[in-house]
Amino acid sequence: MIVPIQLENSGSVQYDVTIDRLPTLVFNTKVAVITNPTISAYHLEKLLSKIECSDLHVVTIPDGEEYKNLETIERILNELFGKKLDRKSHLIAFGGGVIGDMTGFTASLYQRGIKFTQIPTTLLSQVDASVGGKTGVNNSFGKNLIGAFYQPTAVYIDTDFLKTLPKREFSAGVAEIVKMAVMFDKSYFEYLETVDFTDKECLERVIQRSVELKAEVVNQDEKEAGIRAVLNYGHTFAHVVENETAYKTYLHGEAVAIGIVMANTLAHELNLIDIEEMQRVKDLLVKHALPVDYIIKDVDAFYDKFFLDKKSANNKIKFILPNGLGHFKVRDNIDEALVKKVLKSFSKDK
Amino acid sequence: MIVPIQLENSGSVQYDVTIDRLPTLVFNTKVAVITNPTISAYHLEKLLSKIECSDLHVVTIPDGEEYKNLETIERILNELFGKKLDRKSHLIAFGGGVIGDMTGFTASLYQRGIKFTQIPTTLLSQVDASVGGKTGVNNSFGKNLIGAFYQPTAVYIDTDFLKTLPKREFSAGVAEIVKMAVMFDKSYFEYLETVDFTDKECLERVIQRSVELKAEVVNQDEKEAGIRAVLNYGHTFAHVVENETAYKTYLHGEAVAIGIVMANTLAHELNLIDIEEMQRVKDLLVKHALPVDYIIKDVDAFYDKFFLDKKSANNKIKFILPNGLGHFKVRDNIDEALVKKVLKSFSKDK
Repeated sequence: MIVPIQLENSGSVQYDVTIDRLPTLVFNTKVAVITNPTISAYHLEKLLSKIECSDLHVVTIPDGEEYKNLETIERILNELFGKKLDRKSHLIAFGGGVIGDMTGFTASLYQRGIKFTQIPTTLLSQVDASVGGKTGVNNSFGKNLIGAFYQPTAVYIDTDFLKTLPKREFSAGVAEIVKMAVMFDKSYFEYLETVDFTDKECLERVIQRSVELKAEVVNQDEKEAGIRAVLNYGHTFAHVVENETAYKTYLHGEAVAIGIVMANTLAHELNLIDIEEMQRVKDLLVKHALPVDYIIKDVDAFYDKFFLDKKSANNKIKFILPNGLGHFKVRDNIDEALVKKVLKSFSKDK
Repeated sequence: MIVPIQLENSGSVQYDVTIDRLPTLVFNTKVAVITNPTISAYHLEKLLSKIECSDLHVVTIPDGEEYKNLETIERILNELFGKKLDRKSHLIAFGGGVIGDMTGFTASLYQRGIKFTQIPTTLLSQVDASVGGKTGVNNSFGKNLIGAFYQPTAVYIDTDFLKTLPKREFSAGVAEIVKMAVMFDKSYFEYLETVDFTDKECLERVIQRSVELKAEVVNQDEKEAGIRAVLNYGHTFAHVVENETAYKTYLHGEAVAIGIVMANTLAHELNLIDIEEMQRVKDLLVKHALPVDYIIKDVDAFYDKFFLDKKSANNKIKFILPNGLGHFKVRDNIDEALVKKVLKSFSKDK
């Protein structure tokens, strides 16, 4: 199945997200695959057997968020210049979100922009990172603070690559799927409550719907001026959780699961979601072995960290909240005391 | 006077190039001025007196092409994060082409893109670098190999800043002006032959026409897929001259002057321009104290270096040649022997 992506606002960019067995990819240019040792050990041979091109290179970068920085980007760029890639050359991102973000960013920078294809190999990157064109790296001030909006020319999602994905990472992807359902589509949420994720066809349908929903949002708001912020549901809290735990305790999707539960608690205080709906979301997260508890040690310190987030323009915190299942509300005027009351319910002295 | 820039192809980006005394600039956001010690010593006080904003910062980076690299970009980014600029903050490029290219590039990267204004202070950057959205840095493989296409929200050209510009740098800017005239507008060329560049109003008119011509080209071809390549007239040769002299002997505009003469010689071999027109171009360059001679030591080595240029996709050299004054021809099928004959005429054994 194919989900067509069309971005009206930036010169009518168009590309397809293909959810299927990876087809043979034919290029009449130089191609460089950017990957990491983990995914290449399992799947590089298969990938290379599917690429036809005039000259093929593989650039391997270390696996892990801690290498997602400008230094690694410069290393990749130097390798590509060393291999004499030109303006018509093509990059292929082969890995999870880190590889996708860094390959897209590198493609945007190389001679001011060459084409790239995404082949995401984690559930998280298949449903989330491969659509939307957000590319970039971290620095000492935070995650994804440096980057570009840059769209791939094609995305291929092959669920066979997920067979070697650790169970915990699979679940982390489910958190982003739940996020999309709660924000935008109640019947999709209900489908998620019953579906068997181990069935290939069902999983493809789950991914398809998530990609479709994200594509709709991105189509409306490529540069995140408005509605795209809704994709940060759960993330305002998650970023602080990740920061407090030095990005070591939780996978991003796990922190998002905690953040979703926190956001729902705040939404409930504002009468936007009832107890029963809140519980259904929590149950779905728990069913996928996602964490839903987190002990906040210092409520004031946690609150202050909201302002480190790059989305907090002009010192206002924008909370993305569910408004029943399948709908959302964006609020940037919530009383500090109320937010702290919610945070307190996650602390030891609740 | 105002030259409106409209880029149809990328989401209808629009901004104005204002050629006049610098007006008071009012922002309701944080602002950071990026500049270098040379220009700030002369003009920073004047600039700061013209900016009204909520919070004003100045980031000073070392003057010179050798600092135009990713390391400096990372340093600027870190300073801006340290000053807590947010997504609504605004950068101002205050300096020549290096400052403009790096400020635009930084703006494109900061939280995936914040706004920036160009206030170019050299003739070269006023006529050339401030229009077109090419931003970026050099690396060990060559110039401007890493970057982004990113447009400013406004450009202010105040010729008063040129009063402290060294004469040699002023002339380097004239080379790019001559380039535009030869490629696109014979009557403009004739105006240049007679005009007094020291007269403020005349100089403004000269700059205006050059900006207009460049804007027309960029409007048609923002991402350099076609006609924009014509702006590289003289540059194919100039890049090799700069490379051979390690970027130390000539200012970029001076190398372009040499490159224009070389390109014209090749054009003459192809019967595209006659001796008299060739001489008029040379005379105009010489009148502005620009170099028009260069001794090629090794013709074969010089020829091979054409292929290092990032515009040489698929191992073809694209030559941009005048076709009489005011018109151009793009040729990528010129016989190697003919090119080498022309190069030889610039060598000692001519």
